Amino acid sequence: MKAEIITIGDELLNGQVVDTNSAWMAQHLAPLNIRVVQITSISDKKEAIEEALEAASQRAQIVLVTGGLGPTNDDVTKETIATYFDSPIIRDEEVLRHVERLFAKFGFADMPPINQKQADVLADADVLFNDVGTAPGMWIERDGCVFVFMPGVPFEMKYLMRERVLPRFAAFSAREITHNAYILTVGIGESHLARQIADIEDNLPDYIRLAYLPKIGLVRLRLTASGTDGALLERETATFVDQITARLEGHIVGHDARDFEEIIVEKFTEAGVTLATAESCTGGAVSASITAIPGASQMFNGAAVTYANSAKRNVLAVAEETLMQFGAVSEQTVMEMAQGAKRVFQTDYAIATSGVAGPSGGTAEKPVGMVCVAVIGRYGREVTTFQFTNDRKINIERTVAMSLNMLWNLFSKEVKMT
Amino acid sequence: MKAEIITIGDELLNGQVVDTNSAWMAQHLAPLNIRVVQITSISDKKEAIEEALEAASQRAQIVLVTGGLGPTNDDVTKETIATYFDSPIIRDEEVLRHVERLFAKFGFADMPPINQKQADVLADADVLFNDVGTAPGMWIERDGCVFVFMPGVPFEMKYLMRERVLPRFAAFSAREITHNAYILTVGIGESHLARQIADIEDNLPDYIRLAYLPKIGLVRLRLTASGTDGALLERETATFVDQITARLEGHIVGHDARDFEEIIVEKFTEAGVTLATAESCTGGAVSASITAIPGASQMFNGAAVTYANSAKRNVLAVAEETLMQFGAVSEQTVMEMAQGAKRVFQTDYAIATSGVAGPSGGTAEKPVGMVCVAVIGRYGREVTTFQFTNDRKINIERTVAMSLNMLWNLFSKEVKMT
Repeated sequence: MKAEIITIGDELLNGQVVDTNSAWMAQHLAPLNIRVVQITSISDKKEAIEEALEAASQRAQIVLVTGGLGPTNDDVTKETIATYFDSPIIRDEEVLRHVERLFAKFGFADMPPINQKQADVLADADVLFNDVGTAPGMWIERDGCVFVFMPGVPFEMKYLMRERVLPRFAAFSAREITHNAYILTVGIGESHLARQIADIEDNLPDYIRLAYLPKIGLVRLRLTASGTDGALLERETATFVDQITARLEGHIVGHDARDFEEIIVEKFTEAGVTLATAESCTGGAVSASITAIPGASQMFNGAAVTYANSAKRNVLAVAEETLMQFGAVSEQTVMEMAQGAKRVFQTDYAIATSGVAGPSGGTAEKPVGMVCVAVIGRYGREVTTFQFTNDRKINIERTVAMSLNMLWNLFSKEVKMT
Repeated sequence: MKAEIITIGDELLNGQVVDTNSAWMAQHLAPLNIRVVQITSISDKKEAIEEALEAASQRAQIVLVTGGLGPTNDDVTKETIATYFDSPIIRDEEVLRHVERLFAKFGFADMPPINQKQADVLADADVLFNDVGTAPGMWIERDGCVFVFMPGVPFEMKYLMRERVLPRFAAFSAREITHNAYILTVGIGESHLARQIADIEDNLPDYIRLAYLPKIGLVRLRLTASGTDGALLERETATFVDQITARLEGHIVGHDARDFEEIIVEKFTEAGVTLATAESCTGGAVSASITAIPGASQMFNGAAVTYANSAKRNVLAVAEETLMQFGAVSEQTVMEMAQGAKRVFQTDYAIATSGVAGPSGGTAEKPVGMVCVAVIGRYGREVTTFQFTNDRKINIERTVAMSLNMLWNLFSKEVKMT
């Protein structure tokens, strides 16, 4: 079934707030086989609301609307939809008592009268009682289309979706089943990848779609199959996943929707091996990306961000001569940094980075964007010099991605050895 | 002037990716007096793209489109817009050479032929050269409406906006002058702040708008004045900035659009003082936020991410007894970590963090979300225990913000002493 999401409110349009509600809703609709086909953010204005409702209901069978239900004057949603659905507005007594109780609970002796308006609902709508806030939701059906109105406050919207809306959608018979499968690849560009599996992609049946979801240094492939026979869809998808996996040998990190860092934390923990980093140009960004994952403490011992040369010597015991002869940005120095991190933090694996992140500080010999990365494992080691761009943030992001790639390659090789 | 944003791609509709691009664009259009009136996320399908372009161009004078420009098969945008604008597709030789150079730089001997398509552009469009990626942007004008097409990868979109698109829009709005002034505040919540300056806000003339742009731990105020007399606008705005600044004494960090970290790097560099961090629960995120700023090497010596207790002892010389008696998450331990970082990295200031980031690992005494932060300066020191949420990412972000706030407060006090 197709759904559309309409979010109402200027805070999204002026960039003050990032719309996280829509992604959450889409994620929770997918398991019910409800596919979001458009998300529209509009202003709190009569014409905009009418136009969006009209257009959405022509493309989808479900229209979810958030925001615009506050009591202040700039929220015209309720009056607009009363006209749009040609329904009178009535005051819901149960909601009114609930709103008054909430105000009392938060220590207001008298409720400002404007808040009585929170209990106003469309007579033609089913009220979706909101235990966690003052604005109730509304469910109204017209010409085969379901319209759901909810407050924009994320936890109120989530409460109403979980308790009132999703259960009703679940009751709609799910004739069409959707099955997703993922393949996470590293170290191969989107277009190279596309060329390598072009024949497999050409052979995909109509009911299986392939999407490329690239990030820096990674490409996630998603196969989405839809139909009526769940077991068949799963079997068919698995066949293509196997074909693609075999074709891309050496580039496969995982087969689920998780992030690369999550897979690294899991696989290192399973293997009982530990990691440390020694970072110059990345300034702790490699460490921060790993430690953002719950459970990282099982396999991550620590990091030394050695920005100053004195720190490279004192903390990691990089030799004075190495720094003098080859410089801070050199394969020799990153290798000694990685050795230092492995020793200081007593780990099995270490990553080290050093580079000219930019935008200034480059020389003819070592231009902005030049980055050296070393990884050391239990048995082997690798060191590479990259030449990136002149944008500091991008250089740091790319270095993080490439160093995790190098770590993964070394780790995969060594796992096979043991 | 009115603008609309159209984002193309299934990853937004299925909830896999949260759309942060649109908020960024809206924020950067506002200072040019360009107001976003609708944001539409659609699927990579011919009819959806055509319908969205048509509707947007009827409501706005500027239509910004992101996504759908990759070389693989699921990107139909380019062909659709060629038909929509009735423009032939041509291969841009300059872009082609750039794409080939990028592939060579990243170590690919041969570029997959599919990538030649990246150099295909509409003959009727101005090419927006993309130095940081393979997909160029396009600028095309039709019937008084400007359409801009950009890749959806955030850093490529931001690069094109900053370097190619915003400067052209700035030339547009030359008739009406817009003047922006900023006030960056720390340590005061949005609603408290609004209450404190309510009377000043009420007295603002019609042609000056006040926006609250909150981040975790910070609120940036933006005053936007528009009119025809630039000198008058600047003078009037300055009066209100002075009033607000006086009212919020003790909470003001700066008066420009820069990030808090940029101001810290600048002020520390000017004062000739240096910083190091010792991080446990933040895992390098404090260090990464500082070193993301160009020129950070002038004032940042390094960081020790001491995740394991052994690292706290070996690298930072935290006493065994302290860890035994008070535990890793304690005011005593973070204070010794800060002292250790100050000594090891030979700096004037040090920040230390330790906490239970979650989602698991809490105890009755030390629940998930409990975080200790210490800062030491040239003369003073501060230590605080916070109780945050049970969301790991939010806890890390909050800890970064609060530790920078504590650093700034101590630094400001000490600057006045010298």
